[in-house]
Amino acid sequence: MHESSDEHILEHILADNNELAEHNREHFDKNGTLALNFMSAPGAGKTSLLEKSLTQMPKGYRYSVIEGDMVGELDALRLRKAGVEVFQISTGRACHLDARMVARLLHDKSIEQSDCVFIENVGNLVCPAEFPLGEHKRIVLLSITEGDDKPLKYPVIFRNCDVVVFTKCDLLPFVNFDLVAADGYIKNLNPAVKTFAISVTTGQGLDQWMRWLKAEVEKNRNA
Amino acid sequence: MHESSDEHILEHILADNNELAEHNREHFDKNGTLALNFMSAPGAGKTSLLEKSLTQMPKGYRYSVIEGDMVGELDALRLRKAGVEVFQISTGRACHLDARMVARLLHDKSIEQSDCVFIENVGNLVCPAEFPLGEHKRIVLLSITEGDDKPLKYPVIFRNCDVVVFTKCDLLPFVNFDLVAADGYIKNLNPAVKTFAISVTTGQGLDQWMRWLKAEVEKNRNA
Repeated sequence: MHESSDEHILEHILADNNELAEHNREHFDKNGTLALNFMSAPGAGKTSLLEKSLTQMPKGYRYSVIEGDMVGELDALRLRKAGVEVFQISTGRACHLDARMVARLLHDKSIEQSDCVFIENVGNLVCPAEFPLGEHKRIVLLSITEGDDKPLKYPVIFRNCDVVVFTKCDLLPFVNFDLVAADGYIKNLNPAVKTFAISVTTGQGLDQWMRWLKAEVEKNRNA
Repeated sequence: MHESSDEHILEHILADNNELAEHNREHFDKNGTLALNFMSAPGAGKTSLLEKSLTQMPKGYRYSVIEGDMVGELDALRLRKAGVEVFQISTGRACHLDARMVARLLHDKSIEQSDCVFIENVGNLVCPAEFPLGEHKRIVLLSITEGDDKPLKYPVIFRNCDVVVFTKCDLLPFVNFDLVAADGYIKNLNPAVKTFAISVTTGQGLDQWMRWLKAEVEKNRNA
């Protein structure tokens, strides 16, 4: 968010985005698609978690991925190997996805037929928090290498999410990160949030995460 | 950067910022102050590197810190313990410092009398790259836990900097990070860049970093 922008312009941009996000949400609902927005700082492991999760999702459902990056297709290439359709959005200078970028994809057949769309936002702990995309659930990853003070320093994103996943927990013995304290800071901001502590490298905690994720997909399909 | 903003408005904001950054630079130059802008993703270790560096800076010089955060004073409290004057800028919703926020501090006596001002930007690998503050050198930290593909995914900030510091190198044995490859990606984008590989925890690589930093402060004082 740029302080130099007139506050009026900013409010206008946010209001426009919120309206379009509502429209996206109606699209997803009409098609029975669960939309999940994954957000984190750069390098917290969004792509790794998606790669891993996609290999363990229940059969008989259709999945697709919307991949947001400033430039390049590195993450999309990784995720296509998991056998799902991946739509790359190159944001250029933009530091987050917005509802308009997502709206452009909504009439694609693969998206329309998906039971679940995983949206990987640009790596950024600030701006994505203020730009809903029409998603049903917001999932924030916090790598334990980033330090346990991050929820205090970037409160907006931790307040406005449904799930926080602590990632890279295999590194806990080697860094100074108090998991209980960090969990407490987050639940102070956001008492309803669910938290998971995982490592994609060792597999720890993935069962609990996958249980939640599968239940959400099934709940949405049966709704 | 928000795509939804009119491109014209964006160019106007950037041009205004560049002009004010020039003005800030003239202030710093007139006072013989070296200004350094530290940028990185959240949790890459900017505050830890500053804490450590401040304890090892040559005596007989004056130092101060400008600390950018969305909310709170956690990092400022840490740095004040190093015995320097720390000026907190709370950016609120803004995802980066801009030249205007820094300009407001330039007539403070402590800043005017400093031989070196360390500016710690908001944790963000995108927007700070496009908002010069009047600094003489731009230093980007990349934690090796973030992955060696980050220079490819966030090229703007790695192209527009003078120094890259790979941090948390004590964790290299435990993560999949190719230091030579990452160094190559960065030098491809930015052949003149200097790189350092350090760990504040073990002290590895700090001698080389401190040699560079001290030389810059001394060079500026003798200029």
